[in-house]
Amino acid sequence: MKAIIGKPLNRVDGEIKVTGRHLYPSDMWEDGTLLLGLKRSVHPHAIIKRVDTQEASKVDGVVRIFTYKDISGTNRYGVVHKDQQVLAEEKVRYIGDAICLVAATNREALKEAIDKIKVEYEVLPAVFDPVEAMKENAPKIHKSGNILQHTTVSYGDVEKGFKESDIIIEGSYSVPFIDHTPMETEAGFAKMQDGKITVWAGTQTPFRDRKEISKALGIPEEKIRVIAPFFGGGFGRKDGITVQIYLALAAYILKRPVKIYYSREESIQTSYHRHAAVMYYKTGAKRDGMLTAVQARLIFDTGAYASFGGEVMSLGVEHFAGPYRVPNSRVDGYAVYTNNIIGGAMRGFGVPQVTFAFESQMDKIAKALNMDRWEIRYKNALEHGDKTAIGHTLIYSTGVKRTLKKVRESNLWKGKDKLIAESTPFKRRGWGIACSYQGGGLGVGIPDFAEAKVELLPSGRYRVYGGISDMGQGNTTGYVQIASAALNAPVEMIEYTTPDTDRTLDSGPSAASRTTYIYGKALLGAIELLKDEILQVAAEKLSCPKNSCKLIDDRVESDKGTIHLSEIYKLLPEKKRVSTFYVDMPISKDRRDIGSGLPHIVYAYATHLAVVEVDILTGKVRVIGYCSVSDVGKVINPPVFEGQVEGAVAQGIGAALTEGIKLKDGLALNNNFTTYIVPTAVDVPQIEVIAVESAEPTGPFGLKGTGEINVDAPPAAVVSAIENAVGVRVSSLPVSPEEIIKSIEVEDAIP
Amino acid sequence: MKAIIGKPLNRVDGEIKVTGRHLYPSDMWEDGTLLLGLKRSVHPHAIIKRVDTQEASKVDGVVRIFTYKDISGTNRYGVVHKDQQVLAEEKVRYIGDAICLVAATNREALKEAIDKIKVEYEVLPAVFDPVEAMKENAPKIHKSGNILQHTTVSYGDVEKGFKESDIIIEGSYSVPFIDHTPMETEAGFAKMQDGKITVWAGTQTPFRDRKEISKALGIPEEKIRVIAPFFGGGFGRKDGITVQIYLALAAYILKRPVKIYYSREESIQTSYHRHAAVMYYKTGAKRDGMLTAVQARLIFDTGAYASFGGEVMSLGVEHFAGPYRVPNSRVDGYAVYTNNIIGGAMRGFGVPQVTFAFESQMDKIAKALNMDRWEIRYKNALEHGDKTAIGHTLIYSTGVKRTLKKVRESNLWKGKDKLIAESTPFKRRGWGIACSYQGGGLGVGIPDFAEAKVELLPSGRYRVYGGISDMGQGNTTGYVQIASAALNAPVEMIEYTTPDTDRTLDSGPSAASRTTYIYGKALLGAIELLKDEILQVAAEKLSCPKNSCKLIDDRVESDKGTIHLSEIYKLLPEKKRVSTFYVDMPISKDRRDIGSGLPHIVYAYATHLAVVEVDILTGKVRVIGYCSVSDVGKVINPPVFEGQVEGAVAQGIGAALTEGIKLKDGLALNNNFTTYIVPTAVDVPQIEVIAVESAEPTGPFGLKGTGEINVDAPPAAVVSAIENAVGVRVSSLPVSPEEIIKSIEVEDAIP
Repeated sequence: MKAIIGKPLNRVDGEIKVTGRHLYPSDMWEDGTLLLGLKRSVHPHAIIKRVDTQEASKVDGVVRIFTYKDISGTNRYGVVHKDQQVLAEEKVRYIGDAICLVAATNREALKEAIDKIKVEYEVLPAVFDPVEAMKENAPKIHKSGNILQHTTVSYGDVEKGFKESDIIIEGSYSVPFIDHTPMETEAGFAKMQDGKITVWAGTQTPFRDRKEISKALGIPEEKIRVIAPFFGGGFGRKDGITVQIYLALAAYILKRPVKIYYSREESIQTSYHRHAAVMYYKTGAKRDGMLTAVQARLIFDTGAYASFGGEVMSLGVEHFAGPYRVPNSRVDGYAVYTNNIIGGAMRGFGVPQVTFAFESQMDKIAKALNMDRWEIRYKNALEHGDKTAIGHTLIYSTGVKRTLKKVRESNLWKGKDKLIAESTPFKRRGWGIACSYQGGGLGVGIPDFAEAKVELLPSGRYRVYGGISDMGQGNTTGYVQIASAALNAPVEMIEYTTPDTDRTLDSGPSAASRTTYIYGKALLGAIELLKDEILQVAAEKLSCPKNSCKLIDDRVESDKGTIHLSEIYKLLPEKKRVSTFYVDMPISKDRRDIGSGLPHIVYAYATHLAVVEVDILTGKVRVIGYCSVSDVGKVINPPVFEGQVEGAVAQGIGAALTEGIKLKDGLALNNNFTTYIVPTAVDVPQIEVIAVESAEPTGPFGLKGTGEINVDAPPAAVVSAIENAVGVRVSSLPVSPEEIIKSIEVEDAIP
Repeated sequence: MKAIIGKPLNRVDGEIKVTGRHLYPSDMWEDGTLLLGLKRSVHPHAIIKRVDTQEASKVDGVVRIFTYKDISGTNRYGVVHKDQQVLAEEKVRYIGDAICLVAATNREALKEAIDKIKVEYEVLPAVFDPVEAMKENAPKIHKSGNILQHTTVSYGDVEKGFKESDIIIEGSYSVPFIDHTPMETEAGFAKMQDGKITVWAGTQTPFRDRKEISKALGIPEEKIRVIAPFFGGGFGRKDGITVQIYLALAAYILKRPVKIYYSREESIQTSYHRHAAVMYYKTGAKRDGMLTAVQARLIFDTGAYASFGGEVMSLGVEHFAGPYRVPNSRVDGYAVYTNNIIGGAMRGFGVPQVTFAFESQMDKIAKALNMDRWEIRYKNALEHGDKTAIGHTLIYSTGVKRTLKKVRESNLWKGKDKLIAESTPFKRRGWGIACSYQGGGLGVGIPDFAEAKVELLPSGRYRVYGGISDMGQGNTTGYVQIASAALNAPVEMIEYTTPDTDRTLDSGPSAASRTTYIYGKALLGAIELLKDEILQVAAEKLSCPKNSCKLIDDRVESDKGTIHLSEIYKLLPEKKRVSTFYVDMPISKDRRDIGSGLPHIVYAYATHLAVVEVDILTGKVRVIGYCSVSDVGKVINPPVFEGQVEGAVAQGIGAALTEGIKLKDGLALNNNFTTYIVPTAVDVPQIEVIAVESAEPTGPFGLKGTGEINVDAPPAAVVSAIENAVGVRVSSLPVSPEEIIKSIEVEDAIP
């Protein structure tokens, strides 16, 4: 029955979604529901002098306009630093800070009321460049100063390393804010139910939300219930508070059902985003390509609020030198406040930024030494037992070399020369390569656990109480497969419950490539305990040794007879029908004290190969071939895995070629899908997806995590291919056609 | 091949031991070896005025007499507190403090020289009662004061709990220092080898020893190698420094082989011992027997030095109310310095002391409520998911109820009434019961890890590098079984290496019921990684998918062919022939901040049943029937398990009836086996050994730990049986025949 692991299984949530029976958070509605909306700041930095809601209140259909004065709690939230206000008190720090929450019976009234709220501001000087913001005399956004966090890690002796090197390569790189572009924007529904504020929301963190709502509003946690149904995508954007507190506040005070959803424009301007960053690198190597030292300075723009700014930057610091042996290193990371939109969690969490920079450096070294780009990576690639560039030891499965070996067996590798030979005078082709690695879990020092719950039902079926949100990535299907395998029962016997703070147990965020790994691990433990109780009671009933009893489908069999699970249900005391099991994420054995949230220890690895075609007349780049080889441990469900890889690569190609929020004085100019260009099926080639499946002893059935690893390498692989095609090395994302045309030498351009 | 788990296997160290081929630390010798011995303090508390070694140096055969002046390092050691001096500087704190180390060519010269060393003392007032030592005006043994550690834990509302109770029972209990009585006393051998100080010793902690030697002597760790061959018993006595630093010092300075072993008398006086303790308990219960509150004050006498005093007391605090649900509690634990012999680690580590006290309280409540002693335990027994008396949640397998249920199915339970009916007028019989639980591992806040290492050898065999000492308990055999099962290879294919700081990896102490659990867990990981490399290279060689290859005995088989492991060896890069894997001990999910070294989370459980016969003319107690039911998770090797249980029960019966060091002004009066009475085969009945084998998802093949759990309950069970036989409740161990006779009412005595 273990055969279900590694086999395709249709999404358990597939049917209800494609038939429209599933209610997404933005679908929820019942009679009498009020619509909620927000009056937001139009200035990036200002003092609020006066808020006048009088005229707005008179709009027909408006039920209530809330300001911060209606909030009895702290009015603050934030994952690590509680620096965001539910409703602004006296200051706004970016274009989009919420000032008033409006509840109305219809959308027109809501819009009219929001327009009619008058806010008088005293506009303050603002700062939009993180390098400027770090300066002494920059406008101060928070009392604590503009540097949210500075993390320095060194290992070995970087000066000595550079002295021993034969060449030194320096480079500067920059990347913009990136939007997650989930299909469903921030949305939710709430009402009072059984005396509790009950919030249904698109959220990656229902348990943390409950705490945040409780503190911000001054309402005990026992009075709050947060439910996370399947929702339409998150990618980190919903890792924390978006609409949840507004819903809870309005439902609690108005005692009516309430609903909110953001327009795409509102969402892009006010959500969390992948951090913009500027990065300076210096890399030393021997003549044979062996790295001797790497030094870097990373500046991450966290915008107006902290969110995960320090933590994202910390992951940049941890992964700053890629999956390579670097005996001497030093990295300085800064997370800096500006009056821009907010930087936060996004798939990759700091790693996409540094992967672009560091892999570009690897290419430059290869070029300077006239080495093959594959070879320099293979020579330096980390192995089990090696120390990383920040000096911690890789104690678990370490598959980067396997991905490098395997990429050479791919169809794309074997066919790339032929593809490239088809270049035409104005359409030049080239190939590029990049490696990456991605730590799973929240890192040393941050509580990182899961607690699974599984129940034997009266019918003899089982129910898995999934404690981690499924935003569409398919983890629920993974849990059902794991349960099916471990219980030796067909998937039809497994029911599931999505996260609900009243029914499931806190298992942390749906984030950090941890979701299936850690909950799956906890689930295996809970099942083992439940099985033991089932077999124990069966053995007693059948008067035979426990180890002669076997759980098969819906029954226990032994030489002495068979008992159906519905019978077992009756024999088990109530308490023993439910089993729970708690696990902590494994942490690094060394370097536990270099910061918070780093290092990690269970890593996924990838090698990506891209073939591009550059139109040298327009500068337009087309990705015409792509192969991802990744080591995510055992693949539980191949189609789900392939979907994760394809989505991540597409997102990475977007980051390489078209995406990036264009900001003008803190305002997103490209705030919808007409101007913020996400690659479509036409822009992404067929992706060759390969898994090397290293055995990971700590993971459930050997699984690691698939969520993020494949989003890191695409920009570096594409940029590598562009240089291979036209000799232009791009150091700023997204790739600008103008820059390409400008950089191509005239004699090169005319064949 | 997994069939080897749970099956008898002869000890892998059996043959070399019974044939005399194994060299125990005290057997080692080579030409030119010098014997070492110690001049020790004869006063329990004194200033050293002068040490005169002149006459002693002249003894023929004496090579060197060391004092503290010969030591360049800190001259200090101690597991947690470095309060012991290798050689005393200006003060001695107990009878036995080492002052000079003598090296001589023969035993007679050694003895003569030790006698001839003259030490002038200024005798100081001493204190031998820990309660006296806690008083303000008591003689101060260490500068920091006599209270080494005070730990307070409370949970719920203990006052409320007592208010809600229907009865309250109070009691005082005391237990003496207990000796471990290993067959081999402290012993070792050392010499310079390849430029390193190389120490072979009977030690549970070779890696920690290396650190201790390094600091105490001021020699870098790289210059020191500690090897722990199989040795003749430890039980905690060798969990830390005994002879290791003396051996290292003499070998390093004299550049000759050196050897030391203690006489039994020297060993009993100067070793670590189970702490003497006095304990005050107050227990509240409802009329139906449900516990409402427990309060206790525990005073542990750690003697002259800390050793594990604070930690042992902490385990007493953690386990103070037994494996029962107690909604309200408060416990105050003190570890107190006196001028007695040293208290330290011993099998049970604080739990035997409190188990005696708390189980006695349970009996008293049962009696007061006219309840059955089994029933009151079953009603209150902890289950999975419950909170303990210190408020942490049991998240792993929790088998105490199973042991209670199972004891009623034992032959002894069924036969006890018949046995008891055979009482004669002067020989009265009765039965007693006691439960216990024992946390495995070192507890929250103390680094607790193992790192396994396994190698594929040129012959295609495997070698397991065991990082944890085997003092006779059989863990090495367990490792070989685990490796055999996981590698799908016969045990004959598995070689093993006992701990050696140069060859094996630090995996912490052989202690705390952690040894097979944590190293076994690490070993499974290392094997999974090694297997993955073997299958990977086999798949490449055979050009077939990795998952179609199977490891069977000495070869990899697939549809495409077979490769012998000696071939695989040649195909694998050197680095990949060796695999390592690191794991941390799981820790409690809650109450992580109540102290250091507590709470634990992987618990073993036991219920013990004793039947005794009391001679009411002499007061002599004979145990005539004994049954142990324990939940130690999966039993890997039944005879090894039975040996552990039988040894622990015998040790517990000793603690109940005959053992205990009699101290007079700090001097052990019963310091050899003529006067310190250990039960022999004549004194211990046939023990009925039952395992309930709860499934433990965190353990290797479901194992927890067997080392300690069965040493805790015997005194309480025996004392319970004595009361059942003759109506006398003993509260001070060991049971005194005189007290029994005195307490039996005259009318009771004469039938």
